[in-house]
Amino acid sequence: MHNLEKADNNVAELPVSANAVQLDFQTDPDNYRHWKLTASGSIARLDMDVDEDGAMFPGYELKLNSYDIGVDIELYDAIQRLRFERPEVKTVVVSSNKPTMFCAGANIRMLAGASHGHKVNFCKFTNETRNAIEDAGEFSGQRYLCALNGTAAGGGYELALAADYLILIDDGNAAVSLPEIPLLAVLPGTGGLTRLVDKRKVRRDLADVFCTVEEGIKGQRAVDWRLVDETVPGSGFAARVNERAGEMAKTSDRPDDARGVQLTPLSRTIKANSIEYTSLSLTIDRENRNVTLQVKGPGTEAPDTVSDAVDRGAQFWPLALARELDDALLHLRFNEPTIGTIIIKCAGDAKSVKDYDEFLNAHKDDWLIREIMLYWKRTMKRVDVTSRTSLAFVEPGSCFVGLLAEFLFAVDRSYMLDGRFEDDDTPPAVISLTESSFGPLPMANGLTRLETRFLGEPESVEKAKEFIGKEIDAGRASSLGLVTFTPDDIDWEDEIRMLLEERASFSPDALIGMEANLRFAGPETLETKIFGRLTAWQNWIFQRPNAVSDAGALRRYGTGLRPEYDKKRV
Amino acid sequence: MHNLEKADNNVAELPVSANAVQLDFQTDPDNYRHWKLTASGSIARLDMDVDEDGAMFPGYELKLNSYDIGVDIELYDAIQRLRFERPEVKTVVVSSNKPTMFCAGANIRMLAGASHGHKVNFCKFTNETRNAIEDAGEFSGQRYLCALNGTAAGGGYELALAADYLILIDDGNAAVSLPEIPLLAVLPGTGGLTRLVDKRKVRRDLADVFCTVEEGIKGQRAVDWRLVDETVPGSGFAARVNERAGEMAKTSDRPDDARGVQLTPLSRTIKANSIEYTSLSLTIDRENRNVTLQVKGPGTEAPDTVSDAVDRGAQFWPLALARELDDALLHLRFNEPTIGTIIIKCAGDAKSVKDYDEFLNAHKDDWLIREIMLYWKRTMKRVDVTSRTSLAFVEPGSCFVGLLAEFLFAVDRSYMLDGRFEDDDTPPAVISLTESSFGPLPMANGLTRLETRFLGEPESVEKAKEFIGKEIDAGRASSLGLVTFTPDDIDWEDEIRMLLEERASFSPDALIGMEANLRFAGPETLETKIFGRLTAWQNWIFQRPNAVSDAGALRRYGTGLRPEYDKKRV
Repeated sequence: MHNLEKADNNVAELPVSANAVQLDFQTDPDNYRHWKLTASGSIARLDMDVDEDGAMFPGYELKLNSYDIGVDIELYDAIQRLRFERPEVKTVVVSSNKPTMFCAGANIRMLAGASHGHKVNFCKFTNETRNAIEDAGEFSGQRYLCALNGTAAGGGYELALAADYLILIDDGNAAVSLPEIPLLAVLPGTGGLTRLVDKRKVRRDLADVFCTVEEGIKGQRAVDWRLVDETVPGSGFAARVNERAGEMAKTSDRPDDARGVQLTPLSRTIKANSIEYTSLSLTIDRENRNVTLQVKGPGTEAPDTVSDAVDRGAQFWPLALARELDDALLHLRFNEPTIGTIIIKCAGDAKSVKDYDEFLNAHKDDWLIREIMLYWKRTMKRVDVTSRTSLAFVEPGSCFVGLLAEFLFAVDRSYMLDGRFEDDDTPPAVISLTESSFGPLPMANGLTRLETRFLGEPESVEKAKEFIGKEIDAGRASSLGLVTFTPDDIDWEDEIRMLLEERASFSPDALIGMEANLRFAGPETLETKIFGRLTAWQNWIFQRPNAVSDAGALRRYGTGLRPEYDKKRV
Repeated sequence: MHNLEKADNNVAELPVSANAVQLDFQTDPDNYRHWKLTASGSIARLDMDVDEDGAMFPGYELKLNSYDIGVDIELYDAIQRLRFERPEVKTVVVSSNKPTMFCAGANIRMLAGASHGHKVNFCKFTNETRNAIEDAGEFSGQRYLCALNGTAAGGGYELALAADYLILIDDGNAAVSLPEIPLLAVLPGTGGLTRLVDKRKVRRDLADVFCTVEEGIKGQRAVDWRLVDETVPGSGFAARVNERAGEMAKTSDRPDDARGVQLTPLSRTIKANSIEYTSLSLTIDRENRNVTLQVKGPGTEAPDTVSDAVDRGAQFWPLALARELDDALLHLRFNEPTIGTIIIKCAGDAKSVKDYDEFLNAHKDDWLIREIMLYWKRTMKRVDVTSRTSLAFVEPGSCFVGLLAEFLFAVDRSYMLDGRFEDDDTPPAVISLTESSFGPLPMANGLTRLETRFLGEPESVEKAKEFIGKEIDAGRASSLGLVTFTPDDIDWEDEIRMLLEERASFSPDALIGMEANLRFAGPETLETKIFGRLTAWQNWIFQRPNAVSDAGALRRYGTGLRPEYDKKRV
């Protein structure tokens, strides 16, 4: 017996292409179809109860708590809300409302019918969401306990692996498994292999056995092999989960009686070639396959106290902007696959941005301000792993200061105008650094973007630090190595035009591979391994006939026909 | 102007499949067609002078010092011989005998016509060879200086990047470049991207520019961007190269007057389903797609002195076996792509293996013994990166001791018989550890295989250390975590049969991806990034129509037709 959701006999191509359905990442608990979010004191519960009929695309049913992107969008929303809306929640128990099944993993018919691009983006998003679970435990005092009240197969076990602690029910049946390789000829796509050997430090030969045993491992052996932390018989399961959740809560530094911030609906207007948010606007140039993200500086003064900031709620500028950026990046990823280049610009009052930035750094130990900075960290990581070329243009009137200056170090290249535009009185652009570039926003590799940028000359990080708070003009920015090129007005237009034309002319695949390899110099971590290594292998396997052809395992699963494999090893 | 070798107008499918031509990795300087190896005192020169008509496969010419696997086989041979045959050589100057071209990189028509499998294996071998150049400099006191007397494009620059020091001629023309992305829609496949940002620590935005500028970078800018170490005008080029080679030689600890060991031709008999070497035999089971490597213990007693070992030359058992293993692994990789599982067994006198092992560890500071251990290290790394499942079977009569015990920790799984086979008097198998498993043979991740194996329980490494020199039976090996499973005689045959059948039934692609992800837990290095990340991205790109379809860049290069790209980013 295996535990993946059985497909019907006829697997047809499903309309799961990135353009067939426009995905929206905004939701809220009142609209969840697949999860129940409840909280009581310091413990919250997030119960998976997938609605079979609630698939995002036509053509498949979400049986046995299998999931598609729609299920994961709700999970992501719940994780975000728990952090901002529930400061008192210290342990989140993830479990299932289905009797013997925790989660059967990603829906196979969905995967079999999905376009290559959707499969890759689906995995990237689910990976980011699992990373967000670990981030909450490590940095935010909100730890996840996975209560496996039934079998966790494939992506279901990978979801469990993201938790800090795993309790598996010992009922003679419930098992954990990664049956992708024997059954589907693909890899566990959500960090499973990496988390096995690197996070849980499962011995590699045992991991090899585990990943090839369709039915998985259960009971004491699952503990002995480090696959789960404990097993508990059904009679004592609920009590032990509660007890352990309470123990975990005791280690948290989250406040008991702080006011949360409600993540109210975004103000967003989507038109054919633009999206308008409050602090961000997107302009899409389809002909040239690029999009400009125009970030707006704050329209209000920085608050005096944290309480003032809480009063502003989701409108508090750094939080509002992070949510809008997050939404915009996900929209572009899933709904605009032919846009190859993301251009980041900003406009606004530099002094005001600096005030906000100083406020954030001054109150960084407050739980809410900490959450906001951690959200910026995660959002900047979405920029780092974007499969598009990213550019920043620094022009007169811009405000690349503090948090916003970080964009200059996240993008593939930056261009800063040296001087003014002809016939324009706006003074030459300057950029300005704050503490935000020197610690609170590390990349996936654990270093700051400036440390990564200056791996070969660490003294340049120290040099940049000396300029904290100062106005840095184009000449200085160039000599400090903070921007790539600084053309003047005479060259600007031609250089930018040629850059965008050139980039649009290259093979998107080659650019994706190049950018992924150049962006993460320095140390590697679980995260860089997942996004750098596992993603690449999975991309490859998702292209191979052994998995995705009509005779491949992904298409033949559940049909009764055996897949046909090209037996050559490469 | 670009600097890659121009293809003819008609690119047809070439017979460059792994099976069309059986590759042989044995050669010697008298038979080189593409390199001139000369030595004088402490300095050797390795000059590339590719014979246009000396291609390994029909259908293309090796113009402008472009290379194919045949050119690289000679390079690998030269690097090996310099280490063993030339103890007095402390600096190797790599240059070109062509007037304005150092090397134009991998031949494009070869790549355009090669099978996917050949492209991947070609890149893996060239990567290992460049790693061997770095290994010589770091551990063996033999450092490489690349004298770029002309342009180094693509793989030509990647070869240069493997050197410790790069001098580029400043003649107004010579440039370094990685034009793969703009011209061919593939990645530099031999570690170029990783070495740029991780080894030479080129700033990522400058690396982005460099990798998209077809004509490359020359002169002072190449130094400013850290792409080369210095540029020298043509008039002073040769003198400066000699001067720098001499400076580098002064830092070496290699002996001036030691006797080298000639790498005499291997004794090897290749039959349809077997290969016989002196200390190794291969038995191929084509029906079940596996091969058994039977390692033989030494047939002679361990030497008393290093001088005795030198007298034995290439017949000295640890050196002979390393050479045979190396040759066998390469043979299997290129010439037997459908063999999915490598089984490692050994037979011989355990006491004798132990004596050899103790001799090697006692004389580890001698230059020759050091070379032999470093060769074992590199050869074991070929086991680590094999794209086949690897297994070790420990049976009565085996001698998994010291160096040979390391196979148990390199393979994906190991099986040790608990007790005797029925009707066989041979005593139960034991294994035995020596210092060889605790330091001298690190993996690509910088850890020993035991440290990697026991990432989650470092105390198990210490525990294993306590058993150095002792006989470890199956029960003990299992409780120490040194083997995967220990079936007894009743179960052995069935378990092995089911294991091999199961493995042969899985998708080779999924196994490759799984094994690559499970084998390298722990820290990452340049090497693990190259084999784990870059290889995977390149595998993907080598499958994508943007590169390899009839309208893709690799096939259209040199035809005058522009490639057609699917513009979706995934």
